[in-house]
Amino acid sequence: MSVLVVGSLALDSIETPFGSAKDALGGSAVYIAAAASYFVNPVRLVGVVGGDFPSNGLAFLEERKIDVEGLQVIAEGKTFRWSGRYHYDLNERDSLSTDLNVFEKFDPLIPEGYRKSSFVCLGNIDPVLQRRVLDQMEKPRVVICDTMNYWIERKKKELQDTLRFIKILILNDSEARLLSREPNLIRAGRVIRSMGPSVVIIKKGEHGALMMTDTLTFSAPAYPMENIFDPTGAGDSFAGGFTGWLARSDDLSEPNLKRAVIYGSALASFCVEKFGVEGLRDLTYLQIQDRYREFRELSRFED
Amino acid sequence: MSVLVVGSLALDSIETPFGSAKDALGGSAVYIAAAASYFVNPVRLVGVVGGDFPSNGLAFLEERKIDVEGLQVIAEGKTFRWSGRYHYDLNERDSLSTDLNVFEKFDPLIPEGYRKSSFVCLGNIDPVLQRRVLDQMEKPRVVICDTMNYWIERKKKELQDTLRFIKILILNDSEARLLSREPNLIRAGRVIRSMGPSVVIIKKGEHGALMMTDTLTFSAPAYPMENIFDPTGAGDSFAGGFTGWLARSDDLSEPNLKRAVIYGSALASFCVEKFGVEGLRDLTYLQIQDRYREFRELSRFED
Repeated sequence: MSVLVVGSLALDSIETPFGSAKDALGGSAVYIAAAASYFVNPVRLVGVVGGDFPSNGLAFLEERKIDVEGLQVIAEGKTFRWSGRYHYDLNERDSLSTDLNVFEKFDPLIPEGYRKSSFVCLGNIDPVLQRRVLDQMEKPRVVICDTMNYWIERKKKELQDTLRFIKILILNDSEARLLSREPNLIRAGRVIRSMGPSVVIIKKGEHGALMMTDTLTFSAPAYPMENIFDPTGAGDSFAGGFTGWLARSDDLSEPNLKRAVIYGSALASFCVEKFGVEGLRDLTYLQIQDRYREFRELSRFED
Repeated sequence: MSVLVVGSLALDSIETPFGSAKDALGGSAVYIAAAASYFVNPVRLVGVVGGDFPSNGLAFLEERKIDVEGLQVIAEGKTFRWSGRYHYDLNERDSLSTDLNVFEKFDPLIPEGYRKSSFVCLGNIDPVLQRRVLDQMEKPRVVICDTMNYWIERKKKELQDTLRFIKILILNDSEARLLSREPNLIRAGRVIRSMGPSVVIIKKGEHGALMMTDTLTFSAPAYPMENIFDPTGAGDSFAGGFTGWLARSDDLSEPNLKRAVIYGSALASFCVEKFGVEGLRDLTYLQIQDRYREFRELSRFED
């Protein structure tokens, strides 16, 4: 089934305790599309870059067979830039600078040929823009959405408007608490489901992920990693792997939603093993299957 | 198989957002022994109380068929008292007061009839006392040990001396980081195993538990609770359920260690549903089996 991804394309400057990178390819749409591309081809991408977007960024998207018909290039503008520094324990980061540049006036125009896409994954952008994407779509089968603290704090009302049209919301634990005003994650999931999404997935970093529906609570383990190189993009890779698997299997049953959470977790684990998007560059489907089985071993126990 | 539990007996005064209790029965040995008593009888208990220890405390131990031959009663002394207050999110607590009383000079004398116990569970007490217990034992099959920040900070050398004789160490995530000086829990587990224990179990509260050996990493989910009444004793109930199941099954294989982690998690989940030890008072083995199966549903996914 066809997948449309809308989100940011960025040039990230990252410092971790293990190294640093300057103006490396990043952005939510890039990570989501790259992760999803291991399950379906071509993934359709809508986003915006400036004239300074490097050719190796485009080459990466091409390598991953991503359809860039919907990529807007503002020749005279500059690409969105973000820089951040991770702390020693990698669970926290400081944003050092955020230059929206061409992203400031981004209007996500969906090409005619994309409007019937069955699976839509909305990366973390302004909820008003997320809504504008949905207004252009023709009855997508599933809408999957990510968001973040920034929008919950600044545009909660707009976010809530958008959430009414979302089937699956993916967010992290602190965001879930912030959005629901509930410290207990199980209750937070219930409150968020009352805002619209019938499936809420809470990412918990080193503690795995929690998926909740009206009839299901599923606890997915985290992959036991001793060496996380760069956590950037982990959440987006999760969303991409999750969406990619759902679209490939075209099956929204609860057992298959669980599989999708594990595939999302697997792609996130590959992502953080290398710097930037490098962890999503050269995977094979066999590697992904092997990791899926490792997740099973990790959490399986017998009667 | 026979189980010996050594630890504290206390009168706890607890405030949570949902209520409070004064001088309620508590202490690591009480929770551990009560949880283990659902799997083996009688559990042998070594500890100390003052002349003020209430008869309903003794009645509870009797109800749970706990053998109190090793319980020292210092008629002229006062029982160990602890008071604490939980924050709104229940993940943090302030200790308001700690009066060691008779516990200050506690010398854990193991009765002759207890010295051949196969399974020894050392509750969170001074590592010097934990070691003194082990010196009196005659080749126990398994020693399971709990500890806490307090001892890691104040008696790290003594704790490390004790750890050389421990097979299974149970501690929480912040304690694991503190003891190993490693923020990454997988590496923390490796560092702690190098100190002696071949099995390290890291309790992560609302995120479940992680068990690590040289050949296994097992991620156990947390039971999805919307209403935690009182987190006091959850960790001890985990240790008790874990020890009780191991002793009942007398099987130290990896699949059975995993089962024990789930039984420990199940007993902890019952514990926090009510105030103090009330959650461990009237369980049935059937209820425990049902909860075990709920844990399976929670984390199971298919190929």
